[in-house]
Amino acid sequence: MDLNTMSREELAAELAKQRARFERYKAQELRLDMTRGKPGPDQLKLSEPMLEYGMVEGGISDSGIDCRNYGQVAGLPEARAFMGELLGVKGDNVICGNNSSLNMMYDTVCTFMLHGVSERPEDRPWFEDKARKFICPVPGYDRHFAITEQLGFQLIPVELRPDGPDMDEIEKIVRSDSSVKGMWSVPKYQNPTGYVYSDECIRRLAKMECAAADFRIFWDDAYTVHFLNEEPAEQLNLIDACVAAGHPERAIIFGSTSKITFPGAGIAALAAGDETIKFLLSRISKQTIGPDKLNQLRHVRFLKDKAGVVAHMKLHAEIIKPKFDAVEEVFEAEFGSPNETVLDWTRPEGGYFICCRTQNGLAAATLALCNECGVKFTLAGSTHPYRKDPTDSYIRLAPTFPELEQIRAAVEIFCICVKIVLIERLLARCEG
Amino acid sequence: MDLNTMSREELAAELAKQRARFERYKAQELRLDMTRGKPGPDQLKLSEPMLEYGMVEGGISDSGIDCRNYGQVAGLPEARAFMGELLGVKGDNVICGNNSSLNMMYDTVCTFMLHGVSERPEDRPWFEDKARKFICPVPGYDRHFAITEQLGFQLIPVELRPDGPDMDEIEKIVRSDSSVKGMWSVPKYQNPTGYVYSDECIRRLAKMECAAADFRIFWDDAYTVHFLNEEPAEQLNLIDACVAAGHPERAIIFGSTSKITFPGAGIAALAAGDETIKFLLSRISKQTIGPDKLNQLRHVRFLKDKAGVVAHMKLHAEIIKPKFDAVEEVFEAEFGSPNETVLDWTRPEGGYFICCRTQNGLAAATLALCNECGVKFTLAGSTHPYRKDPTDSYIRLAPTFPELEQIRAAVEIFCICVKIVLIERLLARCEG
Repeated sequence: MDLNTMSREELAAELAKQRARFERYKAQELRLDMTRGKPGPDQLKLSEPMLEYGMVEGGISDSGIDCRNYGQVAGLPEARAFMGELLGVKGDNVICGNNSSLNMMYDTVCTFMLHGVSERPEDRPWFEDKARKFICPVPGYDRHFAITEQLGFQLIPVELRPDGPDMDEIEKIVRSDSSVKGMWSVPKYQNPTGYVYSDECIRRLAKMECAAADFRIFWDDAYTVHFLNEEPAEQLNLIDACVAAGHPERAIIFGSTSKITFPGAGIAALAAGDETIKFLLSRISKQTIGPDKLNQLRHVRFLKDKAGVVAHMKLHAEIIKPKFDAVEEVFEAEFGSPNETVLDWTRPEGGYFICCRTQNGLAAATLALCNECGVKFTLAGSTHPYRKDPTDSYIRLAPTFPELEQIRAAVEIFCICVKIVLIERLLARCEG
Repeated sequence: MDLNTMSREELAAELAKQRARFERYKAQELRLDMTRGKPGPDQLKLSEPMLEYGMVEGGISDSGIDCRNYGQVAGLPEARAFMGELLGVKGDNVICGNNSSLNMMYDTVCTFMLHGVSERPEDRPWFEDKARKFICPVPGYDRHFAITEQLGFQLIPVELRPDGPDMDEIEKIVRSDSSVKGMWSVPKYQNPTGYVYSDECIRRLAKMECAAADFRIFWDDAYTVHFLNEEPAEQLNLIDACVAAGHPERAIIFGSTSKITFPGAGIAALAAGDETIKFLLSRISKQTIGPDKLNQLRHVRFLKDKAGVVAHMKLHAEIIKPKFDAVEEVFEAEFGSPNETVLDWTRPEGGYFICCRTQNGLAAATLALCNECGVKFTLAGSTHPYRKDPTDSYIRLAPTFPELEQIRAAVEIFCICVKIVLIERLLARCEG
């Protein structure tokens, strides 16, 4: 069934059919929420044993540190080593913080705003550059864009492709404009596409020439071990690539256990080059006497190491893979395969999202219609800087939190709405 | 025994006597550390039951919030109400964060640096005022001063007296200079003096005329329930006083359970006027998806309410009051009562510190001598902006962490060193 090749009469009949399906769902008065990438209750249960008293009893870490008391501004050494293994660096190059990697990104941008990227006098505070800009691969993560928007950066969208952002475009932008201070990236199982940056893309990011010596890549490796199938995708480490390219301080990698243990009570970390770690610690040591080391101790004792994490992530995959499969099944039943004329969608191997594209100009109308039927998706536009998708076509689906039956219903309603809105456009064209 | 009225011969004899005591201690090769205000292991043990699984099992708060998952950027409602009761405001006027109130102070200053104190265009970012200044009551807390020093404020010392800072001086400073953006305060059981600001002082702070409309008082109520005797001192609430004086947004109160439960794993909060809370939340909502609510849940279930906290603090007082008493006993045995000619010291009713004053110019030499004998105290000068005490006389003692016998030894060595350094000065004067 290709809506685009149907006659006017066939379209009218199809519209009537989809309208009828819509009304049947509407009558059910569903309240379905597919807006945010949250683990479901079954996933949260997997980490309950981490909360047992025995995990922290006595409060002393294996290295002899009293985790209950003050100190260890860079985090518990065991937690730094643990997060370092996840992020692909030595523990010495890790700062392990509290429960939010977003918070560590925000604080790092604020530090660069107020002090510049190092102690060196030529690294001026970013605040002083009124034309400061930040590169935002699109579609991307709304909370990244919001940080740099709030801090007064001009956000420059660059198209994201299945193997990473358009590198020709990025190289051109950073080569000529010293006000381009950095870029956001989710390099593996990207939010919202699930794309994995290629090693070639990573090498180009590491070695490209930047007009701004203080250009920094904010590398949010949020989904580094969040695979859906056999094991996590292998990927070149950006810091290694930057060191090899002679730019050892260019990259700052962020990660957390938010979607490994608990989104609200995980541990977060950043990894960076020697100089940047030293510089950030000189700032953080004025900000706090240290992170919550008891929670770090709990995590290290529960997850142990990367192998322990991967084993734990298999349990997550067992719960959420069927949810991703359910979306795919409904999509295939409704549309066959992804296509640019009706609905395109990604088929991620990991992460928390599926990214769909309607025909240009139909995303907002489609979601408004879903909303009428009791199904909420992430607001159209939220994948783009300033919450404005100029193509009005990108839609992010977050299938992890609702139960399987709810997901099937929500996605079916979504498909119905995609069809209705598209057919109405096609019919209006006939009228016109 | 008044060293200042002794003859040269008497002084020489006394010096020999104290030197002999010093050498006896030195031979013991002690390693005593009285530098930081940390609870001791016995105190940490008091909160061990908070770590039991039953405190957080299932992860759902009484108000039905899943504390394991994302959300609640202002903190768990129960935790906001709890910290509000401690800080003397409604829960709506509280933002409850992670484990460090210092971190919340730092972030608040950074927010004002980058955005100003409100959304209003006339409230310019503090960063833009190159002559920005901050009032620092002295002696005071080194970590406060360090924040505003790092952020480029000129630090203005104002003398702290037993009933609060010199208000005539403060009123004069803030009336004339719109670059004076704020002041630090520890209003109850102050660090390091133990002084309690009087209600009259608080009323004057609330109503004084400030050239800077965006002048803000950072009120670190770190020791609000940390009494040593019967119960916490009563004190006028600064926000109430500010509201009454027509300056509802002037004060931001900070507090935590760091020295109630665990310094490394407590919960922190700030309290402020309606507008400031709303403004700060608009910033924090870009910084994080929410604080560690599981730890907030643990705290609320363990401590329950202010009455629960006060009962818990009595257990702390039973442990640390004997340590403060030991210092007092040694001081009395060595010096009689506090006096300005040999050694002055405070007799706090709460908090974590005792503040001593040697004769001017002798503090650093006294501590260097203590160090020779294996006893470390907080560096001379650290009670003052830029770590420089122009009188070289203030010394902070932190008697909570070491064991009782260690404290007696450390303080006795301190007294011996005070005497040696003073006698040497008096004898040098005779020579001169």
